[in-house]
Amino acid sequence: MELLKRRILTEGRVEGKDVVKVDSFLNHQMDVTLLNEIGKEFQLRFKKYPVTKILTIEASGIGVACITAQYFHVPVVFAKKMESRNLDKDVFETKVTSYTKGIKYGIKVSKRYLGPEDHVLIIDDFLANGQAVAGLREIVKQAGAHLTGVGIVIEKSFQNGGKVLRDEGIHLESLAIIKAIKNNKIFFKE
Amino acid sequence: MELLKRRILTEGRVEGKDVVKVDSFLNHQMDVTLLNEIGKEFQLRFKKYPVTKILTIEASGIGVACITAQYFHVPVVFAKKMESRNLDKDVFETKVTSYTKGIKYGIKVSKRYLGPEDHVLIIDDFLANGQAVAGLREIVKQAGAHLTGVGIVIEKSFQNGGKVLRDEGIHLESLAIIKAIKNNKIFFKE
Repeated sequence: MELLKRRILTEGRVEGKDVVKVDSFLNHQMDVTLLNEIGKEFQLRFKKYPVTKILTIEASGIGVACITAQYFHVPVVFAKKMESRNLDKDVFETKVTSYTKGIKYGIKVSKRYLGPEDHVLIIDDFLANGQAVAGLREIVKQAGAHLTGVGIVIEKSFQNGGKVLRDEGIHLESLAIIKAIKNNKIFFKE
Repeated sequence: MELLKRRILTEGRVEGKDVVKVDSFLNHQMDVTLLNEIGKEFQLRFKKYPVTKILTIEASGIGVACITAQYFHVPVVFAKKMESRNLDKDVFETKVTSYTKGIKYGIKVSKRYLGPEDHVLIIDDFLANGQAVAGLREIVKQAGAHLTGVGIVIEKSFQNGGKVLRDEGIHLESLAIIKAIKNNKIFFKE
């Protein structure tokens, strides 16, 4: 998606060896005009499937998931993060390791909002090591729902989250794939 | 807003004396069709102002803020919650007390995304004691920005957050105002 890549090149700030900050348009300030283009693109790429729910994780996935859901005419469910694993019979829950933050946290989704009848499209802003998506997949599995695919705004393909999903045959669509960051410069795949 | 009140009456679950859970359409699962009606209504109510940014707080404000921003053609900025107050010169920050959770937490907004030129509309899902809005107002003040008004989906007027804002002359628009919860029943104002 050229429009997105241009925004990443013009506004993205490289930090350290593997972090690209895009908080001017994606995950702190959000450009809803761009998010609409992103939503349309996800709809094009997944239109052959009977999606019934879009699943994301708080907080930075919510904006892009909500705008995207307008093009699928389905509700969004966002997994909530919890400080501690509390026993609750009404929720699906699992644990996620954040490499960037160096912590483990729980995520949960109410059993009311995901079930065996659902065809779930997971949407998130970033895919790096894939821990958040792994947690969301685990919740889809607990719900007995069908995983339609995974839509990611920016994938960093030098980390292995995308490879794991593709190797398992999951339909992954990443709108911009960063294959390398060298000398403060961002290089996209193809 | 009758459509919203009907949804609250049919799907809202009263918990305890003062909690109404509306997580089937507003803050866990999100009905983006309803959120679009909410966004249009906010635009109608604040259309006379030159809004340049919509400000909200993670996580449950983000969905309604993003959908609403489409009708104002402005970006959304969401305040991030932090576990601890870390000294950072690049952010506006303050503290918020959560009565429901019984904790104090910090919130922050990057100085890149809010400044004296901004006319800020604060949008959030709930207004009860008004602590989150107070924190967001403090951030608007630190930025030297102009506070245009506050748009709330559901206000609980038996708690004092709304009164404080109105007494100070702030333009507050709440799309549904719950004046009382008695015997598990919800009563709206007017």
